[in-house]
Amino acid sequence: MPATTLAHTALRPRQETSVVERFARSAAASEGVAIRTADVPAWLAERRRAHDFRVDRIPFTELRGWDFAPGTGNLVHSSGRFFSVEGLDATVTGDDGRRHHWRQPIIRQPEVGILGLLVKEFDGVPHFLMQAKMEPGNPNLLQLSPTVQATRSNYTGAHKGAPVRYIDHFVRPEAGRIVADVLQSEHGSWFYRKSNRNMIVETTAEVAPHDDFRWLTLGQLGQLLHLDDVVNMDTRTVLSAVPYADPHGRARLRDAELLSWFTGRRSRHTVSAERVPLADVTGWTHGEEAIEHDEGRYFKVVAVSVRAANREVSGWTQPLFEPVQNGIAAFVMRHLDGVPHVLVHARVEGGFLDTVELGPTVQYTPANYAHLPPEERPPFLDYVCTAAPERIRYEAVHSEEGGRFLNAGSRYLVVEADESQAPLDPPPGYQWATPGQLTSLVRHGHYLNVQARTLLACLGAMGLTS
Amino acid sequence: MPATTLAHTALRPRQETSVVERFARSAAASEGVAIRTADVPAWLAERRRAHDFRVDRIPFTELRGWDFAPGTGNLVHSSGRFFSVEGLDATVTGDDGRRHHWRQPIIRQPEVGILGLLVKEFDGVPHFLMQAKMEPGNPNLLQLSPTVQATRSNYTGAHKGAPVRYIDHFVRPEAGRIVADVLQSEHGSWFYRKSNRNMIVETTAEVAPHDDFRWLTLGQLGQLLHLDDVVNMDTRTVLSAVPYADPHGRARLRDAELLSWFTGRRSRHTVSAERVPLADVTGWTHGEEAIEHDEGRYFKVVAVSVRAANREVSGWTQPLFEPVQNGIAAFVMRHLDGVPHVLVHARVEGGFLDTVELGPTVQYTPANYAHLPPEERPPFLDYVCTAAPERIRYEAVHSEEGGRFLNAGSRYLVVEADESQAPLDPPPGYQWATPGQLTSLVRHGHYLNVQARTLLACLGAMGLTS
Repeated sequence: MPATTLAHTALRPRQETSVVERFARSAAASEGVAIRTADVPAWLAERRRAHDFRVDRIPFTELRGWDFAPGTGNLVHSSGRFFSVEGLDATVTGDDGRRHHWRQPIIRQPEVGILGLLVKEFDGVPHFLMQAKMEPGNPNLLQLSPTVQATRSNYTGAHKGAPVRYIDHFVRPEAGRIVADVLQSEHGSWFYRKSNRNMIVETTAEVAPHDDFRWLTLGQLGQLLHLDDVVNMDTRTVLSAVPYADPHGRARLRDAELLSWFTGRRSRHTVSAERVPLADVTGWTHGEEAIEHDEGRYFKVVAVSVRAANREVSGWTQPLFEPVQNGIAAFVMRHLDGVPHVLVHARVEGGFLDTVELGPTVQYTPANYAHLPPEERPPFLDYVCTAAPERIRYEAVHSEEGGRFLNAGSRYLVVEADESQAPLDPPPGYQWATPGQLTSLVRHGHYLNVQARTLLACLGAMGLTS
Repeated sequence: MPATTLAHTALRPRQETSVVERFARSAAASEGVAIRTADVPAWLAERRRAHDFRVDRIPFTELRGWDFAPGTGNLVHSSGRFFSVEGLDATVTGDDGRRHHWRQPIIRQPEVGILGLLVKEFDGVPHFLMQAKMEPGNPNLLQLSPTVQATRSNYTGAHKGAPVRYIDHFVRPEAGRIVADVLQSEHGSWFYRKSNRNMIVETTAEVAPHDDFRWLTLGQLGQLLHLDDVVNMDTRTVLSAVPYADPHGRARLRDAELLSWFTGRRSRHTVSAERVPLADVTGWTHGEEAIEHDEGRYFKVVAVSVRAANREVSGWTQPLFEPVQNGIAAFVMRHLDGVPHVLVHARVEGGFLDTVELGPTVQYTPANYAHLPPEERPPFLDYVCTAAPERIRYEAVHSEEGGRFLNAGSRYLVVEADESQAPLDPPPGYQWATPGQLTSLVRHGHYLNVQARTLLACLGAMGLTS
């Protein structure tokens, strides 16, 4: 056998342990080579001025390329691509036989996009290439997005816009430089079975600079995660995939037991979620500027026009979902024998691929529950909302995906509790897990919902996953 | 804090490493405490005689409790439970834009069943409690099944039969005794998004003996896996979940790269799989005794009557799917730098929950391809079918799920190859993985299809996963 073939068959260790060490170095670096942490908000503001972005609400009749399809009433793009607003008919049956049935508008986007963080070492410290990206639904328009945030329509050119910068690093990564690559769900209450690829890829190549991009360390991103509306949702979900070595190796449940509990929760619900025509979604009214729930709950479907010079196309119109109110997403946390644990909740959301995923302890929008009796209020909500300031270990408002949702802010919290507020034997559907266990789960798809992934990134920003 | 609460908060190691050591001891035990390995086939035959089972084909009109529903033509049970035979409309689009569209009958069984192996140590060696279980579709009727093999209808009593033996060990396992518990797919060509819980649970309790059950070591099961039609499908899939410590720790691809390759394969296909009425499945003819494909391909829907004394109910009728021909499922294997690798194939099957799962290198039923030109024959088929006997490392015929499929045998093979037959850089959709890597993946649902899980159990029987 020739020498070249021998080299070709060389095997590698299954785990590249140096990644964990090097990323820990990045997490410890409170400043990086490209921009001071404190200057990032001003840089975002400067980029916003440079591009002169403008987003205006418009009536549906002013949408260009979008139409309500005859017959179904679905809101679709003339290209047949991007996404559509359709109807969902959901029936959830628990193992107690109780049945919940509802209809709602939902976003359908079958194609899988890439959310990619490009990483490169400078002075021996890994830095992440972050983009100052405009999304029309963000209250401040520009936030820090991953290096690449692209639907297939974007990077294959259906947008007819500029090519997606740095996409080649993710479509054709260097051999052995993939840190994470996993399909994860997005909001199961607003999307029908949407998944995106969450990718972290390292490079040793020269990377051409661009004014809208800056290299930041994990330590810098951790500090920025403590600010409101700076780190966008796509960045947060990809950051949840940063590998780290569990310093404890111990937990209340063994990993096998935690998986078994999850499997049991997933098994006990039967969810039937069928697409129906938007025109058949009863209880919602289709007006000139919004499709809204008759009792003012949940969200509205609205439309905007966007003008921007640096986006893939220079101007466009599109629908957005606008929640009627900000939500709360909180982990209740306890230190058990010195090891932090958070209380995860096995949640059913109608748009999930498979019945349940693990969400925060509390994931709640008050207006959605206002019509329900007090006993239907979710557990732990009152504790989270009334906790003394010294129990609040983390708090910030973050925007959900600004390309689909308008002014969809959520207050993310990590709140310390004790046995009287959050017992070791929690109610059915809740379970204690360590950040290390969640980091192991998030390597695989559809264990953690997008809100829990944001909170896992926040736990990282608190230094609890390094 | 009182002492009882302190003890209550005690943490455990996330991994219980002793399980791996003890199961390796079981794999090394070629005989056990309950029955000699060589006597198992005779014991199965004796159990068959003791129960006097009888299975007869019947026309659809003789089905009791099953009817073709007016309007849809779906074959459903009057209780609304068990399963139904409906229609599937599938469209698969690859990233080359090629579109395949077809309709077919498919089994819908939304409820999640339990396939559970109960394990207990005797003389320090873990033994698995195996059942001599009759399934009407097995050619020899009785095979070795897991301790528990029960749909929710079984164990909640919709069957109106006897209670399911040993089910409590799985519904309420002892604390810390869960070895594996994961939702896995079954045949994606025959089932619409069916998942079952694959469970391995240890016990230290007394277990009441029963004539239809015997304790066997992993070593005994490994020997029996070399026989035709002895170890049933449900046993094989649960055995694939036996944990083991990878002795090599090295592979052609790092784990992160293997996951990334899988994520990429899953992302590039768009699969639309919608349920349609069975009456709307064109190209199939509904006769008095069978629903069959007009060109004689794929499978027939047929009906049988079953008489048996020891089953949950003493006699019943039911539909079964009968493949027109036996299939082949084979892993092509290479030893790279002394480490065994098998070539997995990312397969689309219409009934999968999520586009693709990893299957064998070759998974093929000749009759299904007879109408296609030679260039559409799957890669590696010719090599597997013509390999010299000394390259065949494993070969046995196994039955697929005998509760749903009639005479559905597959020839399972592991065939050694070299660079000329199976290159290190395989065709798109194929990739090299070690048994250790597959064992890591199978802890999570929907990575390996049911045929690949059978072959992983066979790799265990070959001593390649211990």
